[in-house]
Amino acid sequence: VIAIDWGTSSFRAYRLDRGGRILEKREAAQGILSVAPGTFGEVLEQQIGDWDDAPILMSGMVGSRQGWREAPYVQCPAGLRELSQHFVEVRRGVWIVPGVSYVDESGVPDVMRGEETQVLGVLDELGDDALVCLPGTHSKWVRVRGGRMTAVRTHFTGEMFAVLKAHSLLGRMIEEGPADERAFAEGIDRSGDEGGLLHHIFGVRTRGLFGVLGGAQGASYLSGLLIGHELRAAPEREQIHILAAPALAERYACAASLLGRRSTRLDSEAAPRGLFRLAREIDEL
Amino acid sequence: VIAIDWGTSSFRAYRLDRGGRILEKREAAQGILSVAPGTFGEVLEQQIGDWDDAPILMSGMVGSRQGWREAPYVQCPAGLRELSQHFVEVRRGVWIVPGVSYVDESGVPDVMRGEETQVLGVLDELGDDALVCLPGTHSKWVRVRGGRMTAVRTHFTGEMFAVLKAHSLLGRMIEEGPADERAFAEGIDRSGDEGGLLHHIFGVRTRGLFGVLGGAQGASYLSGLLIGHELRAAPEREQIHILAAPALAERYACAASLLGRRSTRLDSEAAPRGLFRLAREIDEL
Repeated sequence: VIAIDWGTSSFRAYRLDRGGRILEKREAAQGILSVAPGTFGEVLEQQIGDWDDAPILMSGMVGSRQGWREAPYVQCPAGLRELSQHFVEVRRGVWIVPGVSYVDESGVPDVMRGEETQVLGVLDELGDDALVCLPGTHSKWVRVRGGRMTAVRTHFTGEMFAVLKAHSLLGRMIEEGPADERAFAEGIDRSGDEGGLLHHIFGVRTRGLFGVLGGAQGASYLSGLLIGHELRAAPEREQIHILAAPALAERYACAASLLGRRSTRLDSEAAPRGLFRLAREIDEL
Repeated sequence: VIAIDWGTSSFRAYRLDRGGRILEKREAAQGILSVAPGTFGEVLEQQIGDWDDAPILMSGMVGSRQGWREAPYVQCPAGLRELSQHFVEVRRGVWIVPGVSYVDESGVPDVMRGEETQVLGVLDELGDDALVCLPGTHSKWVRVRGGRMTAVRTHFTGEMFAVLKAHSLLGRMIEEGPADERAFAEGIDRSGDEGGLLHHIFGVRTRGLFGVLGGAQGASYLSGLLIGHELRAAPEREQIHILAAPALAERYACAASLLGRRSTRLDSEAAPRGLFRLAREIDEL
């Protein structure tokens, strides 16, 4: 089986053996945003055309409206079976895994695309009822019960940091630089004060104005504020399973620990495992 | 006395009689951002050079680092006396009113510049202990006790709306258009759900994605979300005194009412009255 994690900004292909072990991995900066409509097949050929003929299963934004072809969301609860029943075949032997949608108690929808496959890749490491956090531009929080995903909640954390830094008045107080652990911890701390997020972020400006913190500290403080607000929205006594690349996972684990929350870090290369499991679900592959 | 409210994007001058009544008003789009450093005096001359010679008192961003000259913040508690003791004379007979700063229980500073003068203009309409809300790009919430301002809390509401609309993924879901009252009310409602602001704003995208709301509705929904979060941060049983131009005041009063909060609207042309009262404080004028 060939497993492909094709997201907004990157392309990752894995050649797997019959046991799901990775024989070869290829990575390229050819996310779907850099692929011209109608040329997904060609790009795929360029990237892995020399690999042996094998069934190809893809997850991620490649299945969005802006991708190769839209694979409509499958509603929660969704597990291996529900997703595999809704694969979209884009050419003979090449399938896309659908994303997952959820509607909360207030009737507001939420979605993910790509993360569902990562979660399936770590199922073995989760208990019967677990909360998985996949931080990022749009952090996804996924409830897993009995092997199926039962709820999705997105936080705008990463994108919020980026737009405030690049386009708001706070930008002047925020510079690139090494992370400042103390400023990060102060942001985490502050996120528990009264006043709410819209008030707290103004503190990035006023602290800068009064010289309490400089540029790179401002970035860490804002990061702490946002991640603090995100983590505080999770149930207090619950273990948080963090699934992200090492640096980001470390940052969330540190934040969780500062808040007295229990957390575990999961192996971040979960997509090929999830794709392998999904591939086994159907006879055709 | 000549009272001038000179902010970031506008210049407003009032010629007042000895009783504080407005004899004449002039308004121009010459906020401090459009004035070249070192030319504030010339701009003032152009705008009101033909008015009779009289003491001139100015408030607003004209006293910031980017303005005519910096008038350092006066710390809370601050009233007529404290502010008038710290006027900055930029030329003979021309004074700038300082802004007000506050440090909260957590040691985080907050500031305002211009709003302090508006609050002084409505002192008569407030009881001995009142909470004034001045919505805007940066909404200011001011606690007034015994005629003095004792605390300041800023919310990033207006700027947050603007940057999310112009620079985030949500922008595609948000179009200019007539306000949609129902979508606004849904946003207000949503702001009380669990998950927090970073989660709630992602709903602007997913609702759009599933066709629950269109462009102009998206803008009203986001506005409701943000204002809802801002208002919910205020003490629950307290009367909110809203000081803003009519359309914005109406929007906040409507939001307060949807949340079951009591609110009163104050006359929005409070700056010249505040400046008149400040002018009476000192003998020199």
